[in-house]
Amino acid sequence: MTRRASVAIRIGGVCIGGDSPIVVQSMTRTDTRDVSATVDQIKQLKDCGCEIVRLAVPDSDAAQSLAGIKKRVSLPIIADIHFDYRLALAALESGVDGLRLNPGNIGDREQVAMVVKAAKHREVPIRVGVNAGSIPPDFQPEAPLVERMVNMALEQIRIMEALEFRLIKVSLKAFDVPSTIQAYQMIAGKTPYPLHLGITEAGLPRTGAIRSAIGIGILLYQGVGDTIRVSLSAHPCEEVFVAYEILKSLGLRQRGPTLVSCPSCGRAEVDIIALAEEVSRRMERIRTPIKVAVMGCVVNGPGEARDADVGIACGKGRGAIFRKGEVVATADEQDLIDALMKEVSLSDTGGP
Amino acid sequence: MTRRASVAIRIGGVCIGGDSPIVVQSMTRTDTRDVSATVDQIKQLKDCGCEIVRLAVPDSDAAQSLAGIKKRVSLPIIADIHFDYRLALAALESGVDGLRLNPGNIGDREQVAMVVKAAKHREVPIRVGVNAGSIPPDFQPEAPLVERMVNMALEQIRIMEALEFRLIKVSLKAFDVPSTIQAYQMIAGKTPYPLHLGITEAGLPRTGAIRSAIGIGILLYQGVGDTIRVSLSAHPCEEVFVAYEILKSLGLRQRGPTLVSCPSCGRAEVDIIALAEEVSRRMERIRTPIKVAVMGCVVNGPGEARDADVGIACGKGRGAIFRKGEVVATADEQDLIDALMKEVSLSDTGGP
Repeated sequence: MTRRASVAIRIGGVCIGGDSPIVVQSMTRTDTRDVSATVDQIKQLKDCGCEIVRLAVPDSDAAQSLAGIKKRVSLPIIADIHFDYRLALAALESGVDGLRLNPGNIGDREQVAMVVKAAKHREVPIRVGVNAGSIPPDFQPEAPLVERMVNMALEQIRIMEALEFRLIKVSLKAFDVPSTIQAYQMIAGKTPYPLHLGITEAGLPRTGAIRSAIGIGILLYQGVGDTIRVSLSAHPCEEVFVAYEILKSLGLRQRGPTLVSCPSCGRAEVDIIALAEEVSRRMERIRTPIKVAVMGCVVNGPGEARDADVGIACGKGRGAIFRKGEVVATADEQDLIDALMKEVSLSDTGGP
Repeated sequence: MTRRASVAIRIGGVCIGGDSPIVVQSMTRTDTRDVSATVDQIKQLKDCGCEIVRLAVPDSDAAQSLAGIKKRVSLPIIADIHFDYRLALAALESGVDGLRLNPGNIGDREQVAMVVKAAKHREVPIRVGVNAGSIPPDFQPEAPLVERMVNMALEQIRIMEALEFRLIKVSLKAFDVPSTIQAYQMIAGKTPYPLHLGITEAGLPRTGAIRSAIGIGILLYQGVGDTIRVSLSAHPCEEVFVAYEILKSLGLRQRGPTLVSCPSCGRAEVDIIALAEEVSRRMERIRTPIKVAVMGCVVNGPGEARDADVGIACGKGRGAIFRKGEVVATADEQDLIDALMKEVSLSDTGGP
């Protein structure tokens, strides 16, 4: 897993690209004109680990609201702009830390140039955010979708570079996972800018998390990608949760506990699903990275439990509690979770 | 995505490897000695798309039960054997279609040979199923984990090949995703046998589906893998659901509807999450592959909805219903789902 070299940019205080950790982003669901609701949601997002937040700016009232929101939150804010370059100018006036423009609908070269000049003056990065669903039908209509996505981004990048603007980030999102992967792979060798990964409109969490994990996971495993946003039809904190699970699975970030639990089978002598669910629920507020194993029988149980920071391996009506490979306690089934959680709490430093 | 060449084997009537589609497996949670409960769960699994089912065989009563179970179900059955080679012999007597042996705990070379000879006589394939958590500590203790997993499998394969047994399938499961990927990549070039993929003890569905999607998805994208089993602490039908979502995301299998829905943002003028959830719920029993888009606004909405078999793009209080790129109806917000579902039902052939 050698990471693609990219130039680093800064969104507010957060570095994206270069050697920086992969940054987790999300997007508010609130009406941006409702400053109080939006500020509350941004604070929730910060609390669950989101590092940069994007806000829809559908009209000039929303663009104006950004100034008030910006004053009350510490997370860097990106304004999401479609259709009207004047909203981008107004968002810059409001002091946003980044812009996302959709080259498919933002306007002509002159209008883009006005935004780029204003962003350059304020040293605010711009994401060239191409979506498969909104490429104008008359843009290279004969080319395959992936090439159209890449070429649309490259065209926009050239406009920016011609204005000596290089605070650029690029995304090429589609719903189709293989198309998205190909598009990012193709542009990875053609530009030095950091890449923002996502599978767009991935759907509800049960399926969208899977689609996102595959698309984003394959790219990250190939070393492509500097920041990720998981798009789910759900509360934005669920997007952040899924993003960290993707990064944790690949060893790219650490955050909160990781639960190893067996699927249960005809061999289990305890209700392992109920045990795992209860342990997961009790660990919800923990941010310290701890690997916790909940194993239902003697086949893989002791092996996996030994490998975890803390683990239980259950037998008939009783279980053993392991800490870093040593049995530290045994307990009857009804006391197992309490005994396990006591050990977990010893590993919880209270922070990430 | 060029698929690794592998020799094909048959588990009951299901072909694994070669040019066959990637096969979806799961495992019962019932006590195998409870024939009636186990048969019921196998029927549920068949209904949700499972193609091969594995059963734990912890003792000789369980091994005996397999004969009665086998008579009452049509899915091919694999006996999961640990610790005692005699259970494998008894399972073969009971007429199972496949065996899974864990070389880490099944016994010595003589005992393995007895099982292999009996399986050969009945033409029953055996999976060499290595688990990171149950490799004996004295097996190549100095080698890195991934090499130990691969070498343990290769050693077992050589024992089987020496007995001229080639109905072999191999798995190398670990909880750690990068280790699992490396192990499968390493063995892919060293044996011609089909590979059974999985991330072991992946945990509860919310996190386990993500870990599994990344590990299995990366390997399948590299062309490695012939059958998959998602291991979750959940009802086994959830494993099958996740397995198909992984395969659908990569375009490797088709089954049931695929919901494209936007994440909602400050731009949405309808409650897109509630809409998407309701549509998903109403599509639960559909097995026909249909791509359905539920989009909240005009940014990506019409583009994505046009690309779907059926889709809605919502505006303020109203929405347009698309079918294969054509607007076929418009409806008020409260009638949107009914209008959409009417179109969906026209595409539902009643089968996969």
